[in-house]
Amino acid sequence: MKLSQRAREIQESPIRKLSATANSAKARGVNVYHLNIGQPDIPTPEAFFEGIRRYAEPVLAYGPSDGLPELRRTMVNYFARFGITLTPDQVIITTGGSEAVAFAVNAVTDPGDEVIIPEPFYTNYNGYSSLSGVRIVPVTTAAESGYHLPDPAQIESLITPKTRAVMICSPNNPTGTVFTEKEIRSLGDLVKKHDLFLIADEVYKEFTYEGTRHFSILELDDLEDRVIVLDSISKRYSACGARIGAVMCRNPEIMGAIMKFAQARLCPPTLEQVGAIAAYGLPKDYFDSIRKEYQDRRDILVETLTSNPDVLLHKPEGAFYVMATLPVDDSDTFARWMLESFDQNHETVMMAPGAGFYSTAGKGKNEVRLAYVLESPKLRRACEILLEGVRQYNNKS
Amino acid sequence: MKLSQRAREIQESPIRKLSATANSAKARGVNVYHLNIGQPDIPTPEAFFEGIRRYAEPVLAYGPSDGLPELRRTMVNYFARFGITLTPDQVIITTGGSEAVAFAVNAVTDPGDEVIIPEPFYTNYNGYSSLSGVRIVPVTTAAESGYHLPDPAQIESLITPKTRAVMICSPNNPTGTVFTEKEIRSLGDLVKKHDLFLIADEVYKEFTYEGTRHFSILELDDLEDRVIVLDSISKRYSACGARIGAVMCRNPEIMGAIMKFAQARLCPPTLEQVGAIAAYGLPKDYFDSIRKEYQDRRDILVETLTSNPDVLLHKPEGAFYVMATLPVDDSDTFARWMLESFDQNHETVMMAPGAGFYSTAGKGKNEVRLAYVLESPKLRRACEILLEGVRQYNNKS
Repeated sequence: MKLSQRAREIQESPIRKLSATANSAKARGVNVYHLNIGQPDIPTPEAFFEGIRRYAEPVLAYGPSDGLPELRRTMVNYFARFGITLTPDQVIITTGGSEAVAFAVNAVTDPGDEVIIPEPFYTNYNGYSSLSGVRIVPVTTAAESGYHLPDPAQIESLITPKTRAVMICSPNNPTGTVFTEKEIRSLGDLVKKHDLFLIADEVYKEFTYEGTRHFSILELDDLEDRVIVLDSISKRYSACGARIGAVMCRNPEIMGAIMKFAQARLCPPTLEQVGAIAAYGLPKDYFDSIRKEYQDRRDILVETLTSNPDVLLHKPEGAFYVMATLPVDDSDTFARWMLESFDQNHETVMMAPGAGFYSTAGKGKNEVRLAYVLESPKLRRACEILLEGVRQYNNKS
Repeated sequence: MKLSQRAREIQESPIRKLSATANSAKARGVNVYHLNIGQPDIPTPEAFFEGIRRYAEPVLAYGPSDGLPELRRTMVNYFARFGITLTPDQVIITTGGSEAVAFAVNAVTDPGDEVIIPEPFYTNYNGYSSLSGVRIVPVTTAAESGYHLPDPAQIESLITPKTRAVMICSPNNPTGTVFTEKEIRSLGDLVKKHDLFLIADEVYKEFTYEGTRHFSILELDDLEDRVIVLDSISKRYSACGARIGAVMCRNPEIMGAIMKFAQARLCPPTLEQVGAIAAYGLPKDYFDSIRKEYQDRRDILVETLTSNPDVLLHKPEGAFYVMATLPVDDSDTFARWMLESFDQNHETVMMAPGAGFYSTAGKGKNEVRLAYVLESPKLRRACEILLEGVRQYNNKS
């Protein structure tokens, strides 16, 4: 009687694994600034909650496996705002973006297959790949080139007979990089040439700064049958606890497969779908003030952290994360030390150690991912504490 | 560019696969009685909705991966009512019972491993086993012996070096059978002797009739480290659309593994957990009238259907399903015909063909699963229509 190998091998979330340590710090009376997790502090729109409060069915019944028809139609209208044409049967609602990733990966890969992903990447992709038996083949990107993609030939050199897909996240978690239309088009050419799928996690599409345009893989002509987009309302409407995501694809065979996966878990949560329908009814300019708020925070974070010339970071073009290279020997040890052994006036900072965002061993050892999801004064204070932590950590005996 | 093998192999839900056909019937103006799906018509307790309406946090944030602490404590109290002692860290909240199944199976099996399950079994187990690469080894049970377990030696003969667990569902979906304390104890002896896990889906535990006692595998002494229980509020509180389940286990290593799986999907939906906390506050006698209602329906269904002596069924001891053997050549064809080509005064019945509940090829071909989740007059009418359908189906040229 023993644990399965997959249970032993699946990594603990680097974003959440220090939670117990953070709770101990809080129990000692230390205020912990959470820069570790992409949990926005922007209020969830009142329309979302109002929609749910108005729900008047006597029985909270199973919904359709592919989601409430009204939500699927609403999402079609949402994509139309971006000039992207979809039909409701090209949208399946999932239990969070997490499930959208799992469904897409399972639809196109079998155990032992490979998916090429630029690293650093959203750490939970490691979890899905362990569970689905798929090997992530990383394309390493670097702060120096803004975490943008290397030459297509370099990506092409990673393709093997086992490669099934290239998967990206844009705007990127954890780097904040927004891949350009040119980059996306060259990935399109690549997957077409090698008969692969192209999967994109586009949950941060509203959050781009200084007019940067997000180019969706759904805008690629002539690739309709091999493009799969993963989506979620978690960040868009500050509703992470809702667990409402979606997968969009114009290939009916893929959607048929995903529908079977969806049936196996019956349906996504009903009430939050009702809330999501209401939230999608908000006007497009709802995002204007939020985008400005995040851009201001990004600027404060970059300005404060780079006041230490030994901190290296690429100013993000989107999302609300930054990968910061810190002058510490081991960001894992450092992040734990910040919670266990450090405070400044009873305050400290929680961050996500960088190594968990890479699959290449040894990478990310002096990086951390920071989420700028606190209002500006708190964020500035958190960054100052972080810098003081770096100083004391390096001076300790 | 092709679908994965797992996508091609995963079965379409036999409970839901006729949905499009049923929708066509409805579009023709035919009233369809749904006996195909375990969707209770009992109202969701008002306390559940009230709990959610009272939610006043400004941000619907990520919750803990293992669920809201208050819900975990509430469930500990719930189990205490049955004399079952648990601690909150022996409870992890899942997104529906579906996810509880997936977590438990993934924690104890790797691809190629085997799990022994009495058949007929809850059809979605097939979906999980496809996705996790696990082979279901069926122990066939039969109406003649009330779908109770065969001799332990017969189960033992199915154990191979690849066997990792025995999994049961009691009260059973789809048979309504409640395994006796003696049956459960002999399974306990078996898993101990062969160093296996024992997994039980006990989501229908409140619904047993004529005083039948449900014996939980959590009551087995001396097996604490190898017993895993799967649970859900879907049927208990008529809240199928909530997607709130749980997994209970006293083995910390198993719970550590499940926590890592839980982190990979971040958290279960928050609002429905809030609703569940409120629902669990209802007194134990909340179930008395519901139990009586289901027992009455069971009696009506059994009485009406067995008025045709060629219909064979075992009177269920629990849950709200029955496997009925019908005098038809192929229940799949028959179920589809009932929706496509039959109506009586513009009414027909949808049922779940039996084959999908078996993994032994050829089994269940003249069985259907019926859920008695309609109020008595409708249920009686549905059963009469079903019998008339059988008559006309067999008389057609």
